[in-house]
Amino acid sequence: MKRCLVLLSGGLDSATCLAIAVNRGFKPYTLSFDYGQRHRIELEKARLLSERYNAEHLVFPLSLSVIGGSALTDFNIDVPDTPLERIGKEGIPVTYVPARNTIFLSIAAGYCEVKGIEDIFIGVNALDYSGYPDCRPEFIETMEKAITLGTGFFDRGKSFHIHTPLIDLKKSEIIKIGMDLGVDYSLTNSCYNPDSEGNPCGRCDSCKLRLKGFMEAGFKDPLKYPEGIEL
Amino acid sequence: MKRCLVLLSGGLDSATCLAIAVNRGFKPYTLSFDYGQRHRIELEKARLLSERYNAEHLVFPLSLSVIGGSALTDFNIDVPDTPLERIGKEGIPVTYVPARNTIFLSIAAGYCEVKGIEDIFIGVNALDYSGYPDCRPEFIETMEKAITLGTGFFDRGKSFHIHTPLIDLKKSEIIKIGMDLGVDYSLTNSCYNPDSEGNPCGRCDSCKLRLKGFMEAGFKDPLKYPEGIEL
Repeated sequence: MKRCLVLLSGGLDSATCLAIAVNRGFKPYTLSFDYGQRHRIELEKARLLSERYNAEHLVFPLSLSVIGGSALTDFNIDVPDTPLERIGKEGIPVTYVPARNTIFLSIAAGYCEVKGIEDIFIGVNALDYSGYPDCRPEFIETMEKAITLGTGFFDRGKSFHIHTPLIDLKKSEIIKIGMDLGVDYSLTNSCYNPDSEGNPCGRCDSCKLRLKGFMEAGFKDPLKYPEGIEL
Repeated sequence: MKRCLVLLSGGLDSATCLAIAVNRGFKPYTLSFDYGQRHRIELEKARLLSERYNAEHLVFPLSLSVIGGSALTDFNIDVPDTPLERIGKEGIPVTYVPARNTIFLSIAAGYCEVKGIEDIFIGVNALDYSGYPDCRPEFIETMEKAITLGTGFFDRGKSFHIHTPLIDLKKSEIIKIGMDLGVDYSLTNSCYNPDSEGNPCGRCDSCKLRLKGFMEAGFKDPLKYPEGIEL
């Protein structure tokens, strides 16, 4: 059985990605990054999801706060509630973590090389996250080539593959596929500002996107939202 | 004055790279990785070198031992004394750290994006380290493109540049250039197995390469080697 590594944040997209990898016949390994993210609940969700899919789960500690520059890792930058709040004129959201997917994919590549795994699944999405430079297909293609050249894969006559099954999908389409594959979305978090019990706020950029997706897909989000949030 | 980031390991090559960056008119920032390397003396050397060149020095903690797979980070793998000791038939040395430069360059890119720096100097060398996949020009070129696409540089109409001034040079040529630029090589370490005071063993792969380089360049290595080692 061919093995793969799934980058698992504990969010909705990567959980769906894991289910798709399994559905395609891969034996999954999972990799999460403890990068000082505000929403610690994600790592717990990633652990539970890995258990559910019998995937060996590695949490890699990564001190991204050392370089700063993002609302997700730098506590001096506020996370905005509204999706339109941006940094400057480039249209890159303040929740973008500089070079995050480049860094994640590089470390994943090193781990894959050690394990002899040639396939990575990553739940990037060019549609909803069009402001994130590291979610674009051109980046993924070039990074795949860089990793192949920069590791022992090339010398062994092999290519490294980065699978991005969600890249062209709308949030509602992702949720439909996941529901088809039996993903338990109660084992995921999307919220940028969850409460102390890990329940979502229902108001932030990411919660709104998620709730809209569930509504359009015709399903009810199993997470527990505050009263007054329309599901 | 244009700023640059120099990846500084504390070794001979990266120290020379720093001097070259300064000589080319850049104001240098330096970045070192604390990746659980055996030879801790390197980080101290990197600190002293940064001081010498008035460079703001960041040490990024990186738990590469979590993924293992290299004699430099995995204490279950012995560091060989001889240059010919290799892993398997691929000809990749056991001192290769899986995807190391891919990972280093990615994190450097994130830091550069935060700082608004567009130029990275890295002391990779394709000649002496021809067995290291991540020291080859094709890798560097593709990685440069991946970083440009995967960060905000592209959106800002800018390109990211990875400078590799040493890539085609022999060790002796690197040393000649460094001596010309006044590099204090006592502030560097190359040894894989330094003693408790940080002095080199003179016998390992890396020491031999360094000593041969100094001899061919016609200079004496200022480091203190054990008695009986030919300088």
